[in-house]
Amino acid sequence: MSVYPIGSPAVVALGGGHGLSASLSALRLMTDRLTAIVTVADDGGSSGRLREELGVLPPGDLRMALSALCDDSEWGRTWRDLLQHRFTSAGDLNQHAVGNLLIVALWELLDDSVKGLDWVGKLLGARGRVLPMASVPLSLEAEVAIGGEVVTVVGQSQVASTAGRVENIRLSPANPPACPEAVDAIMAADWIVLGPGSWFSSVMPHLLVPDLAKALHETKGRRCLTLNLSSETDETLGMTTIEHLRALYRHAPDLRIDAVVADPSAVEDPDLLVKEVDHIGAVLLMRQVGRGDGTPIHDPLRLAAAYRDVFDDFLGDVGTISR
Amino acid sequence: MSVYPIGSPAVVALGGGHGLSASLSALRLMTDRLTAIVTVADDGGSSGRLREELGVLPPGDLRMALSALCDDSEWGRTWRDLLQHRFTSAGDLNQHAVGNLLIVALWELLDDSVKGLDWVGKLLGARGRVLPMASVPLSLEAEVAIGGEVVTVVGQSQVASTAGRVENIRLSPANPPACPEAVDAIMAADWIVLGPGSWFSSVMPHLLVPDLAKALHETKGRRCLTLNLSSETDETLGMTTIEHLRALYRHAPDLRIDAVVADPSAVEDPDLLVKEVDHIGAVLLMRQVGRGDGTPIHDPLRLAAAYRDVFDDFLGDVGTISR
Repeated sequence: MSVYPIGSPAVVALGGGHGLSASLSALRLMTDRLTAIVTVADDGGSSGRLREELGVLPPGDLRMALSALCDDSEWGRTWRDLLQHRFTSAGDLNQHAVGNLLIVALWELLDDSVKGLDWVGKLLGARGRVLPMASVPLSLEAEVAIGGEVVTVVGQSQVASTAGRVENIRLSPANPPACPEAVDAIMAADWIVLGPGSWFSSVMPHLLVPDLAKALHETKGRRCLTLNLSSETDETLGMTTIEHLRALYRHAPDLRIDAVVADPSAVEDPDLLVKEVDHIGAVLLMRQVGRGDGTPIHDPLRLAAAYRDVFDDFLGDVGTISR
Repeated sequence: MSVYPIGSPAVVALGGGHGLSASLSALRLMTDRLTAIVTVADDGGSSGRLREELGVLPPGDLRMALSALCDDSEWGRTWRDLLQHRFTSAGDLNQHAVGNLLIVALWELLDDSVKGLDWVGKLLGARGRVLPMASVPLSLEAEVAIGGEVVTVVGQSQVASTAGRVENIRLSPANPPACPEAVDAIMAADWIVLGPGSWFSSVMPHLLVPDLAKALHETKGRRCLTLNLSSETDETLGMTTIEHLRALYRHAPDLRIDAVVADPSAVEDPDLLVKEVDHIGAVLLMRQVGRGDGTPIHDPLRLAAAYRDVFDDFLGDVGTISR
């Protein structure tokens, strides 16, 4: 289906959950050199039960990323549908996703999380590679202002669903080992895409893994930040676009951002955003990348075209990006 | 690895569990036209829990048969090892075989038990097809003489582990629908192989499915009965070889058997067996087909060679079979 230009860019997408799936669904249309680096702090649902029962990395976000990269054939789609299938029962298996069980079993069998994910990638004919951001399961903790009080919220699922103002996030253990292949991918990338996704629980945790943060600061690859289509989630309720950006800088003040992609429907004050992005020395592409039907869901084709414009602009100006 | 002769025979193997795996491990060496028809009365272990929780066919014996047919490559062996892998934990997943979960999920996704098994076969690059003997989960019941008393034992796992003399077995529901593809395979077969395997719980249940029994009686294919290497199981404790044969006739008096394969180490009285097999009009191949190390385990190469001799003998006498 896709025609990749000769010398298509090496792209690394950071995130977790539905946001990363949206990112990958777009990026797979424009490059065959694609790596996803996925958060491993999930502690809810099927993933939470598996890390509790078997002491493994939470597989759910990794499964979703792999599924988004499946080959566009009966073979790829059938195995994707199987990985995404959830049991429904009154018993022990209720709500377990089959792909989570399969990934965890491969980890136990091969005793190597990257090899296990590569085998699932082979099964799906995946258009890219999926890696965990760290080699050990992590816990996310946040300081959240609720009313006049600041409380500590423990666990990604709690952070994502606590309505309040997130002041600060941290990981436990505090300095987890990065997945070495993820560090290598960032260092070798032409572009690294951060977001869209749950801002505190999927987009920002990567910056808290020391070796990953170091690679993100040192890579010669360029960094593109894709803003969300809505801040109507518990963890970001009432936050403006500018506040999203500033929350990120607060945790990585020296991180250079080269480009920002935003959908005008999600920007409260376009002039303010232009000014802010200019201030950090990045270029801004403001264009419809959502479905435009009121749902906060990215359209893969529009997002892919936006990325191509952004990436090409750094090769030679195509005149579409405000500086 | 294997070299199939031109026009290799269409073979159907009936059974369940380890016995059927042994049969398939041999037959895959001599034909590429192989179908396994598997009991679906298992109610123990991982399979028993899955049929209880999700109302599906018990997948365990089907999984073992598919695993025995996996492609002899890194790909086939890795997925086989994954299917055979069991979780070990103090929680809900303990002792579930991954392949059981995968098969059941494919059934739920595709809503077709044969299609689901065919997809697992494709995953493994399986050297043949695996079918369930019936379209609905079954329960096995037996009248067992224990001491001076005859008691009814319900459930395949109970039948297999009750030490006593099995007088009679039946299925519940009593007249289950056969898997149509299994009936077709029997009607189209050159050879049907019954046994080895747990005599009452894996080898004989097929005769109690009316459409399957009808096909077994009416097919133009020939029938080969492979006797066990040991009767040291609870359900057959103390039974002689002759008594094994007679238990089978008791449930299918008109079934024509064309050939019997027996390992001399497991035959108490060779003269009596020759006479008995002659009496039913079959030929007997008595030859070492076990490992010969005291374990009651068939050697795939010896068993394959035995089948080739038996099958060829009906094309033109190769002089190795006593009549």
